Parts: sequence; C-alpha cells; structure tokens
Amino acid sequence: MYIELDGQGPRYAQLIRALKAMILDGRLPAGARLPASRTLAREIDVSRNTVLAAYEQLQAEGFLLGRVGSGSYVAEIGSRAVSTRKAPFAALAAPLSPFARRAVAITDGSRIPGRQHAGLRYNLQYGVPLTNPALASAWRRELNRAAERAEFDYPDAQGLPLLRERICDYLARRRGVEAAPEDVLVVSGTQQAFALAARVLLDDGATVALEDPHYRGARQIFAAHGALVRGVRVDAEGLVPAALPARARLAVVTPSHQFPTGALLPLARRVELLAWASRSQAWLIEDDYDGEFRFGGRPLAALKSLDRDGRVLYIGSFSKTLFPALRLGYMVLPPALREAFRAAKWLEDRGSNTLEQAALAQFMAGGGFERHLRRAAQTLRVRRAAMLAGLKKHAGAAFDIVDSNAGMHVAAWLRSRSHADCERLAAHARERGLGLYTVAPYALRASLRPGLLLGYAALPPADIEAAMRLLGRCLRETGIVA
Amino acid sequence: MYIELDGQGPRYAQLIRALKAMILDGRLPAGARLPASRTLAREIDVSRNTVLAAYEQLQAEGFLLGRVGSGSYVAEIGSRAVSTRKAPFAALAAPLSPFARRAVAITDGSRIPGRQHAGLRYNLQYGVPLTNPALASAWRRELNRAAERAEFDYPDAQGLPLLRERICDYLARRRGVEAAPEDVLVVSGTQQAFALAARVLLDDGATVALEDPHYRGARQIFAAHGALVRGVRVDAEGLVPAALPARARLAVVTPSHQFPTGALLPLARRVELLAWASRSQAWLIEDDYDGEFRFGGRPLAALKSLDRDGRVLYIGSFSKTLFPALRLGYMVLPPALREAFRAAKWLEDRGSNTLEQAALAQFMAGGGFERHLRRAAQTLRVRRAAMLAGLKKHAGAAFDIVDSNAGMHVAAWLRSRSHADCERLAAHARERGLGLYTVAPYALRASLRPGLLLGYAALPPADIEAAMRLLGRCLRETGIVA
Repeated sequence: MYIELDGQGPRYAQLIRALKAMILDGRLPAGARLPASRTLAREIDVSRNTVLAAYEQLQAEGFLLGRVGSGSYVAEIGSRAVSTRKAPFAALAAPLSPFARRAVAITDGSRIPGRQHAGLRYNLQYGVPLTNPALASAWRRELNRAAERAEFDYPDAQGLPLLRERICDYLARRRGVEAAPEDVLVVSGTQQAFALAARVLLDDGATVALEDPHYRGARQIFAAHGALVRGVRVDAEGLVPAALPARARLAVVTPSHQFPTGALLPLARRVELLAWASRSQAWLIEDDYDGEFRFGGRPLAALKSLDRDGRVLYIGSFSKTLFPALRLGYMVLPPALREAFRAAKWLEDRGSNTLEQAALAQFMAGGGFERHLRRAAQTLRVRRAAMLAGLKKHAGAAFDIVDSNAGMHVAAWLRSRSHADCERLAAHARERGLGLYTVAPYALRASLRPGLLLGYAALPPADIEAAMRLLGRCLRETGIVA
Repeated sequence: MYIELDGQGPRYAQLIRALKAMILDGRLPAGARLPASRTLAREIDVSRNTVLAAYEQLQAEGFLLGRVGSGSYVAEIGSRAVSTRKAPFAALAAPLSPFARRAVAITDGSRIPGRQHAGLRYNLQYGVPLTNPALASAWRRELNRAAERAEFDYPDAQGLPLLRERICDYLARRRGVEAAPEDVLVVSGTQQAFALAARVLLDDGATVALEDPHYRGARQIFAAHGALVRGVRVDAEGLVPAALPARARLAVVTPSHQFPTGALLPLARRVELLAWASRSQAWLIEDDYDGEFRFGGRPLAALKSLDRDGRVLYIGSFSKTLFPALRLGYMVLPPALREAFRAAKWLEDRGSNTLEQAALAQFMAGGGFERHLRRAAQTLRVRRAAMLAGLKKHAGAAFDIVDSNAGMHVAAWLRSRSHADCERLAAHARERGLGLYTVAPYALRASLRPGLLLGYAALPPADIEAAMRLLGRCLRETGIVA
C-alpha cells in the first residue's frame, strides 16, 4: 500500500493524517482491510508501535473497525459525502455580512497588527506610551496583590463594583462628573466603548457626526456598522457648533482636548452643543481621552458635568493615563442607556478581565494612581517644553504650532499647505529613523490642512531635541524649506 | 386577538414584528397569555407552523416565556425596559437600535451580573470552576514573570504570536487539529467568539441552527443580532443531522461533549454534518468547550480535523480548563474568514489583554498548562464518581442519569417529566442552600425533557455526597418522590 507521509510532526500523527485522507477521499473504501501492523511498519519504515498507535486512534475515532485476529477494516462512514476538493474556498459562497465586508475594507488588513517600531531611532508616533519604570513596578505590585485574592469565577459584566466606586470618586474630584457606580460600565478600552455605542445606538444608515479631524477608530467602527459618517468643522476653539448637521443620531466630541488639534472647547460652545443634541434628539459621546494632563490653567470640567438631559455618554480611558497594553476604560451612561449597554457588554464578552480591574481599583484606592498622574504630568510637561523648543528652533520656518497646554502630543501645521509635501516629509523621516504620523488619516475632508502629530510621551528631552534636529534636516533634504 | 400583519416578507416574520410591536407598546402586557398556536393560526389565516415558528423565535429573544402544557406568556421585560421609563429621559426620543432592544429583552437585566453565591452551602451551578490552590500560585508566578517583561504598547489585535504558536502545538497534539498561527485569533472568551461570528457571518434575518438544548450565550447573541434561531434535535448520540434545517447560514455544534446533555457525536454523524454544511453552504462553529476532560475511552479528534472544505470555525476556551475570570479563548478560522475576523476584533477592542496572553504562552510552553490539565482531570474524575454514586444512592429513583465520561457536569433527567416539578425542586433546593440549574433555560423547545445540570467541579467528594443527600431530601420534601 502506498502511503505518503507529510513529514510534519510525530510519525504516528503523520500516519493518522495520511490514512484519514485516504479514507475520506475514497482511496481506502469502506470494508477495505488494512495491512497488518508489522507489514505496514516495514513498508513505510516506522516502528510497529507507531502503526499500532495510529490504528488504535483511528479505531477510537470510528474510521477503522478492529476485528480480533483478523485485522483492521475501514468503517462505513459515508465518505463520499465529504468533499475532497483541494481549494478550501468553496465556503466563500456563504457570503460575509455587510458589517464584515465593510470592516475588511475599512481596516485595510495590512495595518491591523499595529504600528511598526523596527528601525526607528526616534518614535514620535502618537499613542506610544510614557514608559515609566516606577509605574511598571508599582503596577506589578498591585497585580501581585490582586492575584493573591483573585476571584476565579466569571466577573461582574458591568465591572468590578470596587473599581466602579473608585472611578466615580475620581471623576467627581478631577472631572466634575457626578456619577454613581450603577452609571459606570467598565469596558476593554475606548475602542470597545465606541463599538458598544455603535451597536446600541445606531440603526443601519443612521447619521453620526464626528469632529473633523478625529480619532480614526471611532470613524471605522461607526462606518463598519453602516452609519453615514459626517465630519464637523473644527477651528482653533474646537468643534464649530454651527457646522453640526441638522439631524444626527449621535455626535462624538473631544471638548477637553480636541483630537488631534488640541483645541479646548469653550463653555459657550459646550452649551450650544448640548442644545443641538436636545433639539435634534441626538446622543453625545464625550471622549475625554487625555483630559487628565493639562499644563496651563485649570482644566474645564467635563461636558458630562453640564448634562441635565441625560444625553451625554462619557468615555474615560486608562490607555493614556497608564499604558495601552492595559485594555481597560469606562463609560458613564445616562440612566436611559444603562440597561442596554450592560446587556450589550454581557452579550459581547461577559465582562472585562477581573484581575486587572482589581489591581486598578487598589491602585486608585491607595492613591498610587493619582501620584502616578502627577508624576507623569511633570514628565510630560518637560518633554512638551523640549518638543516645542526643538520644533521652533529646527523646524519653526515650516510649521504653525498649536500650543494646547495639554495631552501627550503637539499638532504642527505645514505652512506650505501641501499634503504631498507632508506625506513626502513623513516618508523621508521614516527612512531616517524618525517615526511620526501625518494628520491626513485622521480626517474625512481632504481639504483639511496638512500637518504632523508629534507625540512626546515616549522620549526623554535630549532625544526629543535630537529628533527635532533630525526633522529640520528632513525638511531641508526634501526641499520643503531651503 | 386582533393582529394586523403588514404584508412585508414572509408571514412568520410579519407575525413576529406584529407581536413585538404589541409587546413593546404595552398592548400585550407582561404576563398576558397568547392564544394557542392552532387558534391563532385559524384567526389570522396562516399555517400553524408559521405561528409555532414565530412563538419559538419570540421565546428565543426573550419576549415570550413558554410553559409546558400551558402555552406562551408575555415576558416581564420589553415594555418596561424600552418604552415606559419615567422622565427626565427626554433623550429616549432618540431610540435604541434594534440590536439594543433585542439585547435588553433577551438578557433580562436582572440576571446579568452573574450567578448568586450568597447563602449557598453547596454550589452545583454549572460553570463554577475547580478552585485549585496549586493552579492559583502557578498562575501568579507566570503573571509575575510576564509583568516583568510586559510590553506597554498596544497588543497585536490577532493575539500574541507566541501564544498563537503554543495554541497550535497544543491543538495538534491533543485535538488533532492542524492549524498555523495565522489561522488563530485570540479572543476575550468564548462569548466574544460567538459575538464576532454573529457580526461577521450573519445578515439580518439569517437562520442559525443550534443544537437544542445548547449554550444559552450563543442563542442570545445570535438572536440579538436579528438571526432566526432554529433548534436542532439532540438524542443520546448528540445532534440529529436529519433534523438540521434545509437552509441555514450557520450551525453551532458541540461534537466532543454535547452541551448540556454530554453526548459524544459519532463519526458517521460528523461526516453527515459536514456534508450538510457543504450542501447548504453553511458555516459550522465547533464549540470544543471542555473536550480536554475525558474520563473513559480515547478522545475523538475535533470535528475541525475533518474539515477539508474550510467550513469549520473552531472555538477553544480557557475558562473551563483554567478559570472563568481569565477572559481568554481562541478561534481557529478557515482561510476565507481570517481577515474579516481579524478586522472585526481590531474594530471591537484592539486585541485582548497582553499580560494574560504572555503569562498563558509561558504557562503552555513550560508544560505547566498540561500538567495542570492532567491534575485537574484526576480531581474531576474523583468528583464525578462521587456525584454519580451520590446521585444514584440518594436520588436515583427520580432521575435518569446520562453518563458522558467527560467534562465538569452530569445531566440528570427527571423521570416525572414535569417541568413544574423540576423548577419547584430547584427553587426548594436553593432555599435549602443547594444551588443548581435546570435544563429548561438552555432549550428553545419547551417540550424538552426536564432535568438538572449538576456541576461537580467546585466541590470536594465529601461535599458532593452531602449535596446529593440534600438533593434526595429536597425530592421528598417537594413530594416528587415518596
């Protein structure tokens, strides 16, 4: 009998695979008798035990029948019913959902696994975190303690009650938001908050208003859910309320620190925004993604603190304040939406990771979290100053800089107003080992002014100065400045 | 009863829409009894099967409750949750999505936060984990090591490459599944695998075939996504292929250990199932939820190992093998679906928790995981024997017991065949401090035989014996046995 082994993994597994294939495609028909183990072992040059183990397994799985003293026979299993086509894609005839087709188109497969660090001397890509050895060891300590008392059963789908309490306390003191633990839903990061909102709030074809430019992950998930995404103009004071569409189901806003321009939305515009929501019966999602880090003036309370009408869904993140690998964030929901979001979260994943929630609750309760925030703010303040100084010195001729007094990045707008220049600059910088993002992918309108997002969280001041010097050189090498 | 059909699409869909509208706006209040299917069929001039299909779907979505022998009643949910909130929720005028309305109705708010342990002397609820001090400390050690080398940046959305490699190695050796790391998607538990599948594979109104009884979380998420959920009969050998609907987009199956009856699907039926999928161009989801724990005979390889056609999506879970609080599981995807699922996961939450993934990869690489599995299997074997012996001794007169030789629970079928008896027994046991689940919530068909799911993972043998003695007493106290 001719049996071809594929050479992958242990011999008995190869033999099992080969025999199954022969049975399933009819080369070994029902009733056929297999060679005695000794014979087959000799023929294909394996040990007899290997053949016996394979026969035994095939018997256990019902492919073979064993008869004492008379060998092994192929069982009647209706082999002809199983397709033996090589091409595994017949299944495609069962099509993907509209969601899936849009999701694939929107996310553009290749970019999914995240940013590429390889070969970068200086990484200014927005979102690269502040790496803080003190935080790392404090966090390990909290995890350890949490693991000692870990619950092993399924979590509370709405989030660990202790953590929700700590979040409420934090929000009341730092963001002016009055919330009770039952208003809070713990989620696996900001992105999940948007995904849940898309499912809970949107009918197919609903209109969603996004500031333009904006956080791309929000646009992608709303578009994948079939929403009609409309951009709303942003100026130096943030979202322009007059530019809001007359009707929308939902608007996503970043009043504390417009992403990515950095603008702080003044109170009058906040009030206009709330009035618009009330008039058009729309929900507002306030993404307070880095409202914690302000370097000048008092922070404005969150928009949510003005919400008398129960229209604002507040989203907070720990990816920015702690680190992105910690997949935890939260929503503060109006009463009318609590139940639906809790149900959606339960249906999605039964609740977020318990251990990290417990560690975070302790970290907040013990004061470690706010100590870390203060320390991080100091570090960021120094890095931001280095960035602004370096940018002015080495690249000041090419850019208008928006000084937002907050966050972890600076937006630098290219004076030449040429998107081609901007992309060319970023590509050249990349080759030179300087990683940075342009604003373009964050915008719907191609007419948006070209610019760079320069993240300063990950590098010490000396590296930032060097990176800015390199940026200046790139500007000259690309001929954007003389 | 006056029901107006809108004439759009199939009759059963019209009837479902009409009944939902009546429930949601209060014309059919909670507790109202619906006409018998035969009566309603005559009144509105449709076939009785149309009415039955509509009732079944409304039951699956949680709008109706079915009581054997006494018809269908409006559940206490929809209207309260959706339409009659108290002020000041003007915002409600911006309605929830159809998904959200179904999600709220299906999950029935009150049960979301998970099971209640309080006041239970003996907890036999299915899914309560094996608590193992050795595992807890081994896991702490791995977490610690992982935290020392933790990446702080965003994870790989598809899952940590090292973990995906270990999963492939494990599957090849233990489940007969050949997979490459690019076929694997790490998810935040089995529930998320179903949720992603619902979004990627289902159009609105698609038919999904579920074994009946089945894992309720799957039914809920598919129904919330607007699928028409059809039950497929299960007998002592598991799913009955002849009972599969002629057309479906998707079938969810548990061939290694039918949930919750425990049946092992024989090879011939596996082949028939694959042939059905091929014929009807349907996807198959194989939920291999506790295939690792078998106490007799050799384990059958997973259905996925027979999948020549690229139609099987394999789901593996660490909630059962390690503990539920660890929100990690994985899917092995056919090539045609890889990209869409990766995009859906990226859009949902950017990827699962890195730290736990790293700890798990090490735990698997160092052999600790399989050592734990062997130890857990020994423990479970002893507990299962105690459960079967105690059940026979103290409650044998009342139940038919299905001995499935696998898993973490036993199904005990009530000889009296009265669902009312069964619910009464469970409620009485609860008061006596004995927590257990009845089979009814896991089934679509109210005609399913009444029974109990008895989980034995969480209790030592002496407690299991005591719990069975208590169950025997409850049987007498409720008059179910003399």
